[in-house]
Amino acid sequence: MNYILRDENALYYECGYSCDNAVFLSLGSDRWFVTDSRYTVEAKERVEGAEVVEAADLLAAVRSLLRGSGAKRLVFDPKEWSVQALEALRGKLAGLRFIPRPDFSHRKRIVKHPEEIALLKRAAELGREGFARFSEYLNLPGVDRREKRLHFEAKAAMSLFGEYDLSFDPIVAIGANAAKPHALPSERILKEGDLLLVDAGLKYRRYCSDRTRTVDVKEGFGFDESPRFSSRKIQKAYDLVRRAHDRAIEKARTGMTGAQIDRLAREVIEEGGMGECFVHSTGHGVGLDIHEMPYISARSREVVEEGMVFTIEPGIYVPGEFGIRIEDMVVMSGGKAEIL
Amino acid sequence: MNYILRDENALYYECGYSCDNAVFLSLGSDRWFVTDSRYTVEAKERVEGAEVVEAADLLAAVRSLLRGSGAKRLVFDPKEWSVQALEALRGKLAGLRFIPRPDFSHRKRIVKHPEEIALLKRAAELGREGFARFSEYLNLPGVDRREKRLHFEAKAAMSLFGEYDLSFDPIVAIGANAAKPHALPSERILKEGDLLLVDAGLKYRRYCSDRTRTVDVKEGFGFDESPRFSSRKIQKAYDLVRRAHDRAIEKARTGMTGAQIDRLAREVIEEGGMGECFVHSTGHGVGLDIHEMPYISARSREVVEEGMVFTIEPGIYVPGEFGIRIEDMVVMSGGKAEIL
Repeated sequence: MNYILRDENALYYECGYSCDNAVFLSLGSDRWFVTDSRYTVEAKERVEGAEVVEAADLLAAVRSLLRGSGAKRLVFDPKEWSVQALEALRGKLAGLRFIPRPDFSHRKRIVKHPEEIALLKRAAELGREGFARFSEYLNLPGVDRREKRLHFEAKAAMSLFGEYDLSFDPIVAIGANAAKPHALPSERILKEGDLLLVDAGLKYRRYCSDRTRTVDVKEGFGFDESPRFSSRKIQKAYDLVRRAHDRAIEKARTGMTGAQIDRLAREVIEEGGMGECFVHSTGHGVGLDIHEMPYISARSREVVEEGMVFTIEPGIYVPGEFGIRIEDMVVMSGGKAEIL
Repeated sequence: MNYILRDENALYYECGYSCDNAVFLSLGSDRWFVTDSRYTVEAKERVEGAEVVEAADLLAAVRSLLRGSGAKRLVFDPKEWSVQALEALRGKLAGLRFIPRPDFSHRKRIVKHPEEIALLKRAAELGREGFARFSEYLNLPGVDRREKRLHFEAKAAMSLFGEYDLSFDPIVAIGANAAKPHALPSERILKEGDLLLVDAGLKYRRYCSDRTRTVDVKEGFGFDESPRFSSRKIQKAYDLVRRAHDRAIEKARTGMTGAQIDRLAREVIEEGGMGECFVHSTGHGVGLDIHEMPYISARSREVVEEGMVFTIEPGIYVPGEFGIRIEDMVVMSGGKAEIL
């Protein structure tokens, strides 16, 4: 199959290198990495299994490779290409059919290789260390505890102070702010016993970690301990989320669909009478991108297989009051889900 | 004119609010901000001059507004829309012509309003403060001076320790690494007298700052002082870049094209015999986006007008040896360029 890619992580997956201006072209058994002069030295050192082509106009270079090959069909991802870039590529390429395949690269990447699982495991370990470093800041006396500052400190801790890139901009939300899925950072100040939701991850050799903890911040607290909220309502919700999370991980099996795994978590929260407060899906795949396939949602027909890696992250959100989410990454191994 | 936008900064410019899942539609005198339920509360509080529409499927909601209006033509930016999104929007909209206008929003935003200039001025001031905070770290005894760590500390200082977002991921490059336009951060350690190039900026109320300094790091150095490099070759190149930078700012006038302003800088470096080492354009517009119009390049026919804001940033790069760049933001005011 002939295909063309331009997303950085899609390129990295194909040949072990990427940069912010490149196109990857695979025609029959020939593969090219087309980039500009800023990157060709590095590309030639690092690209595996493809020929590096230097060009000022990448798409013109791709057109000439396509013309030379006599290819009749070319698969592309219509999410990855802007209208303008596809028009520029199409140019005067008569006789070549462009076949849209949404999520083409994500589908290739849905089952992780053992080496990828090892990298994701290491990312998850380092991510836990990042949470531990962040709790150290929170346990220091007299520090700035405005939500905005906590967000800054979470980024510092999660990168292990500059050693690793972040998988995404962390979410650090106090109390009622945790109920908003995309809250703007506020001037609110964290106080003893406040609920704190932290959703954060880092990248190890480009593979992402993703983890969420919700805690009651008291002296000496840690993200790995079971919180004891003074509010019974919050504690009840927390316990439901915890049971939903644990059940989905315990009972997930290869051969189930994403929707069936989503049910495992959702049933617990529905039976607890809070189904309406679980407003998102149970999880998503993680790899080079922070959101990949398979999706663990009520509508997902994707069948979960050995070697897939995804999150389990049920939540309960009560607007104006609180939000709770517990998230871990799992890999399907020996037919079951194992926490990374 | 009828138009549709989906870029976050384009939306913010139209109505003072944006979020990561929204579409803005302007048909005759009617304007709509279409978003999902996560954002509608905030949107209703903040959107100015447009009606907020809540929808699970944004593009379906837009289609129904378009059908209701009887619009015949709709301007869109083909760089902003993916092939998939445009296909989904087009759907069954017979009789509506989609008019591609690349850089549609950037063209609207090319001349800044006085309030925007005030925000950009404030961003530039705070950006200078960020550089000062970073030099404080570098002047501390015994700190970690690996390039990687300096990158982390530059991010911390440039955000004024979490108070502001960054305009872009800063470039912090030591010696020969400064010659690579997009160097990967290395394990190299900064030593006394080393050349250090820092290109960084922050956002003040969403408006970007952008600044570059190249210095020789000695005890008590600062980013605002004139460096004295021990290498005569580096000092000569630095002096050329400085003169090119100063000349372009002194002699730029409204009514000149981007290419003419680029010449002002480039001539100095060419006459100094290092024209081949100035491998990029002289500048770019800055506003809500870090790269906007006008472009100050050899090919730019854009005529520079009162109220435009752009960078002047000539550079000299000698692969394997060193790289130098000096960058400031200017606004065209009273016919001349004034440093922000």
